[in-house]
Amino acid sequence: MNCEVVAVGTELLLGQIVDTNSSWIGEQLALAGIDCFLQVKVGDNWDRIRDALQIALDRSDAVIVCGGLGPTQDDITRDVIAEVMGVELVEDPQVIERLHEIFGSRGRNMPMNNLRQAQVPEGASRIAQMPGTAPGLICPIGDKVIFAVPGVPYEMKEMVEGTVIPELRRRAGDTGVIRSRTIRTWGHSESGIAEMLGDRLEELDRTGTATIAFLASGIEGLKVRVTAKADSAEAADAVVAAEVGEVAKILANYVFSTEDQTMEEVVLDLLRERGLTLGLAESLTGGLIASRLVSIPGASDVLRGSVVSYASEVKFDLLGVPVGPVVSDDAVRAMSEGACRVLGSDVGIAVTGVAGPDEQEGMPVGTVFMATTLDGVTETTMAKFPFNREQSRQFTVITVLDHLRRRLLAR
Amino acid sequence: MNCEVVAVGTELLLGQIVDTNSSWIGEQLALAGIDCFLQVKVGDNWDRIRDALQIALDRSDAVIVCGGLGPTQDDITRDVIAEVMGVELVEDPQVIERLHEIFGSRGRNMPMNNLRQAQVPEGASRIAQMPGTAPGLICPIGDKVIFAVPGVPYEMKEMVEGTVIPELRRRAGDTGVIRSRTIRTWGHSESGIAEMLGDRLEELDRTGTATIAFLASGIEGLKVRVTAKADSAEAADAVVAAEVGEVAKILANYVFSTEDQTMEEVVLDLLRERGLTLGLAESLTGGLIASRLVSIPGASDVLRGSVVSYASEVKFDLLGVPVGPVVSDDAVRAMSEGACRVLGSDVGIAVTGVAGPDEQEGMPVGTVFMATTLDGVTETTMAKFPFNREQSRQFTVITVLDHLRRRLLAR
Repeated sequence: MNCEVVAVGTELLLGQIVDTNSSWIGEQLALAGIDCFLQVKVGDNWDRIRDALQIALDRSDAVIVCGGLGPTQDDITRDVIAEVMGVELVEDPQVIERLHEIFGSRGRNMPMNNLRQAQVPEGASRIAQMPGTAPGLICPIGDKVIFAVPGVPYEMKEMVEGTVIPELRRRAGDTGVIRSRTIRTWGHSESGIAEMLGDRLEELDRTGTATIAFLASGIEGLKVRVTAKADSAEAADAVVAAEVGEVAKILANYVFSTEDQTMEEVVLDLLRERGLTLGLAESLTGGLIASRLVSIPGASDVLRGSVVSYASEVKFDLLGVPVGPVVSDDAVRAMSEGACRVLGSDVGIAVTGVAGPDEQEGMPVGTVFMATTLDGVTETTMAKFPFNREQSRQFTVITVLDHLRRRLLAR
Repeated sequence: MNCEVVAVGTELLLGQIVDTNSSWIGEQLALAGIDCFLQVKVGDNWDRIRDALQIALDRSDAVIVCGGLGPTQDDITRDVIAEVMGVELVEDPQVIERLHEIFGSRGRNMPMNNLRQAQVPEGASRIAQMPGTAPGLICPIGDKVIFAVPGVPYEMKEMVEGTVIPELRRRAGDTGVIRSRTIRTWGHSESGIAEMLGDRLEELDRTGTATIAFLASGIEGLKVRVTAKADSAEAADAVVAAEVGEVAKILANYVFSTEDQTMEEVVLDLLRERGLTLGLAESLTGGLIASRLVSIPGASDVLRGSVVSYASEVKFDLLGVPVGPVVSDDAVRAMSEGACRVLGSDVGIAVTGVAGPDEQEGMPVGTVFMATTLDGVTETTMAKFPFNREQSRQFTVITVLDHLRRRLLAR
């Protein structure tokens, strides 16, 4: 079974919107074991949409077409599919009912334009999920099928997860259930992680119980995805859980989450469980650590605040850093302890470094000093990141949070 | 002249990487007046790349193929193009020379694998720009042409800007030069801006001297792009400059940059020119304002630092906020003045608000108080953002920076 994706919208071709929908659909198809060999973007043009759909149907078993289901004149996906199917549009009373329901619940009258959305190709059936005003459609053509889903990401996702993928798998005669889970790691390269898992990968190749894939994801860490297929969701979940356990045992301390949590979430949880509060002193990262932590709801239980001490005098006067080099082990140590004192926190994190463009205090761009203070003991470390300004800051955030995570676990 | 884009890479289909290259190329083509009706993603598979190129060539005047020019076995774009052209691969001594130069400058020997990159289809010529090890290629096929560029964004961009677009325009017989400039605005909606420019847009429709396009870009502001075509770069630039002047005059205070600067850059420049330093007190934004400012090289001339006072006690103890409600006009005023005092800065910015998920002090989620302190005078303002947690924080950053910008200009 292979399935092509056709994204409709002139704004996609003009680069005004990046087509993340197709990427997401591609990922879901891969996860479900359905091949996706081609993805096409086409503008809001009748002939070109028709030709793109026809070519896609000729070379693929199924097509997901995304976008162009709205109420306005340039939303022509429904009409073009009807032409490709060789049928007329007919009014779907269920859709009209649903539209009235949606507008009614907002206390508004339905504009006449929206009636266009109830016109569906004869022989098409409606996708059960309908979170917005655009109905998703299942349009059989011979032994092939076109699925039409809206371009609004959350509407598209509900329909693809709820109906399109299960229907594709049913058509593929695949009655098994596929499940997967992601293990997050930090501190080792992709090839290093793959080497550690070498024996395990060979074993899985032989037994075929589960598969493992790697995905380097910058500040999100290196992801290890475990996938398994079984006759029931329970059975597949059990295989995945067992394999996640095996992999996590092998990767040991490099694993920061087996539940797809971010490093920020993990560290906040560890601190919260232990009843500890956190204070930060940030130079190089300039508030980025604090900013990422507060993006997690509930961060306020743990995070007292951050002193972004960009000017040296702020380090000296406010944090009590000894006057002298500010990109140094001594400075970062004093910053971390100063953060605890000034912000009244149990735990401290501090970073200072050379963001560039020029070297500073004889240190090359990318030099970073990091410190964590826990139970009155401050540990420091130094790194040299070979990245650009933004990447160095991002890597610093996850690296120093990982230091604290390890210390909390070893406590 | 129309040009199709074919992006090569299995990782694009699997959703491991979002194809931003095609979006960028689409934007450049539109700007140059070249139609782009289709964009295709295809995996690293010989037959499918060949078919995609053949279909693209049949229906378009030109094709840009992006990716698959690296040194490894799965980089087969060169080979497939040779098959489509019906020619052999030949060694290009210029490319070998350039490869030796690149590896030499890094003090490394060239791996044999890289020699694959010097194999180019007979009759193809090399794109002059070659910032990495992958050579870009111009491959004529009858009166049509395939341009091959690497998938690495900065390498791709240099080649597309430097050679592909000018060559496409030459082939289109278009000797005119297209230039554009972007005006950045904040504080008014897209429809509001369009309404203000109504008469001007009608005038341009009639005279055809320039075109204007709008693009809402979140934290980057609402962009207004002015484009003009003329016989020479100088003439086009002059039309654009005149039109930018007209538009900026109409939009007046909503314009924060006519030079495509970010709000952060504009505010840092204004402060630097006036010899003023800046201190921040951030609650809701949790370090995001500081973090965005320090991402601009040279921010250290101006930015003293930020006190991220997430816990109320940090607001009271460190910033001198009167004990009481912390999502209030009084609190944000004291925070801004406290930032100046604690960080020793001339100018202060402060924000506090309700991030959610729950209301706070009887205030609904999305309530934000902002303050700026300048010349000893603190001004405050309140906003209710109907967005999610992350968007509210992003909008707060640009809104409060815009307040300071207006005050600095009115000073």
